Amino acid sequence: MSWILYEDDLPAVAIGAAILGTGGGGDPYVGQVMAAEALQAHGPLEILEVDEVPNDQWILAIAGMGAPTVLFEKPPAGDEPTRAFLALERHLGVTSAFPCPIEAGGINSLIPIAVASQLGRPLVDADGMGRAFPELYMVTFHAFGQSGTPACITNEFGDVVILDEVHDNFMFEWIARGITIRMGAHAFVAQFPMQGKQLHQSAIRGTLSLALRIGKAVMEAGNRHEDPVAAIAQATNVNGYGRAFLVMHGKIVEVSRQTVEGFSKGTVTVKALVPNEGTLYIDFQNENLAVRNGSKEFIATVPDLITLVDPTTGYAITTERLRYGQRVAVLIIPAPQIMKSAAALHIWGPRRFGYDVDYVAMTAE
Amino acid sequence: MSWILYEDDLPAVAIGAAILGTGGGGDPYVGQVMAAEALQAHGPLEILEVDEVPNDQWILAIAGMGAPTVLFEKPPAGDEPTRAFLALERHLGVTSAFPCPIEAGGINSLIPIAVASQLGRPLVDADGMGRAFPELYMVTFHAFGQSGTPACITNEFGDVVILDEVHDNFMFEWIARGITIRMGAHAFVAQFPMQGKQLHQSAIRGTLSLALRIGKAVMEAGNRHEDPVAAIAQATNVNGYGRAFLVMHGKIVEVSRQTVEGFSKGTVTVKALVPNEGTLYIDFQNENLAVRNGSKEFIATVPDLITLVDPTTGYAITTERLRYGQRVAVLIIPAPQIMKSAAALHIWGPRRFGYDVDYVAMTAE
Repeated sequence: MSWILYEDDLPAVAIGAAILGTGGGGDPYVGQVMAAEALQAHGPLEILEVDEVPNDQWILAIAGMGAPTVLFEKPPAGDEPTRAFLALERHLGVTSAFPCPIEAGGINSLIPIAVASQLGRPLVDADGMGRAFPELYMVTFHAFGQSGTPACITNEFGDVVILDEVHDNFMFEWIARGITIRMGAHAFVAQFPMQGKQLHQSAIRGTLSLALRIGKAVMEAGNRHEDPVAAIAQATNVNGYGRAFLVMHGKIVEVSRQTVEGFSKGTVTVKALVPNEGTLYIDFQNENLAVRNGSKEFIATVPDLITLVDPTTGYAITTERLRYGQRVAVLIIPAPQIMKSAAALHIWGPRRFGYDVDYVAMTAE
Repeated sequence: MSWILYEDDLPAVAIGAAILGTGGGGDPYVGQVMAAEALQAHGPLEILEVDEVPNDQWILAIAGMGAPTVLFEKPPAGDEPTRAFLALERHLGVTSAFPCPIEAGGINSLIPIAVASQLGRPLVDADGMGRAFPELYMVTFHAFGQSGTPACITNEFGDVVILDEVHDNFMFEWIARGITIRMGAHAFVAQFPMQGKQLHQSAIRGTLSLALRIGKAVMEAGNRHEDPVAAIAQATNVNGYGRAFLVMHGKIVEVSRQTVEGFSKGTVTVKALVPNEGTLYIDFQNENLAVRNGSKEFIATVPDLITLVDPTTGYAITTERLRYGQRVAVLIIPAPQIMKSAAALHIWGPRRFGYDVDYVAMTAE
């Protein structure tokens, strides 16, 4: 059933989306400010469940793209994603399309709220990743054979580029990434135009509600001085996701990070607070990809959600904020079944990121 | 007055365009094949003078873009520039636009012939460079304040990208170059949409006729066993261009060349055949930019046309064909006045290419 999102919900959405963002998806604060400005101006926002979207209703997916680290130095003007949305509508010759998040995570759960609010249209409670992933073809929409194009890319200077047609979604990612790099390593994209009938088939459902639920649980645990990690575990156990579980309480002892080809790539090393409980190595490409132990054995990999949170507040630590000496709780949230089909693992399993291992499903011990 | 271009004229156009291409503009042979196929299929082509184009007639400029060296390994499919043209027309909501070359030189004098012929429309006898230059904003259209966008870029895989809006023409070049690099360092562009009234103001006139005239002169000199360099000198002396003059008969003793940022950049060293007549250094970025002598003093720079030709045939040697041991005649063709205004020198004078010298007009001694 459709529901109403209020400005007061945004802090919780931001907290939950950052946890689902598994280190990526951009700093949620920037998106929260954009969404709050829009809801202040236009009032509460109607959120539609996937099954409420009519078969012939047009949907455009909305995302920020690039290296999240760059957003600190290059804040958005605020209207880029809506301009991308409208330019793509014009190009397609459609009107009244509904926005949908491309991913659940960080800025990219909040930007679509700003877009829907600015347009005065409902937002779809779904996405194509069920978490954050670094590349545009890493979506269930692609797994179900949909083209990312026509798509539209904008930046804060008013530049508008339309990818009219590409021969496959890997080329879509390749060209869009090239444009994003030339736009200063961050841009906004409207993409994967589809109708309700395609959305029904391919969307990961209820991920905006899930972000809100996780965020509320973290905030309530904070108010009650309870363990936020336990609250996250309780909150994630819906929509097919598993209970989040703790792998380690530790301290960051090393961060290596580079901005490479428009991505923020690196490895963070976490040492257990309890002596002799070992070390974890967490690789990231915008998002956390894999956790290995001191013997370099894999503890968890994509598509399961690997999230570092502040152990006292439960707030996620995005990869651009990782720093030496930080206390962290390393959590795994088991992904739902739709993210672990053979077609889905082909898109975002560990081998796609260059790891020579098969995906092994994680469950709480 | 309008005139008719026949398939039999194409070898002469290719020879002349390569000479105006000043080492760049791409290997004319590839464009000649594309133009010949089109004229065989569709018959002779009507060529319009600038003043014959009505004020409200739409014009789109057509070009190959990227590192010409790449065309040897990655030949065009043949319909890319026409697809770019039609996609841009659709985007603009116009029909029946006329193609116009963006530059006079190499493949880019011949591709527009193929496009006009495939479309069944007349081609405009003009361009925006009066020679070949390496970057998209290096056109008189830019000097007269016209935007390069909306523009459309295509490649041989059917990928189509539309640059809808950019905040200036330097960003246009920067983004289009990024897309071209990701398309494999060569692509085709339809750009600078304008109407007849803008064309009348900003075009460099008669450069297709000039290419044909130069090419015919070279071919006739060859048939009569006369000096082709003298024939070129005679032929260039129209439309405000000066008589071509010879700087050196020499031998290539070194070629350094790299494909950098989507350009073919380097320096060729030419030693005089006659002992003690010295050495010339010719820098290029796709096109030849500057000639310096053994004391590194500038002999000539952009925008004057620096062309290396085979001294026996008079055929231009494009930068991708330069090789050790080759005999060459180094020619300078003084550019016409429209290419040497303050606004024009700001776009393509020696300082634009990083040389710390002002342009000094060349004339035959």
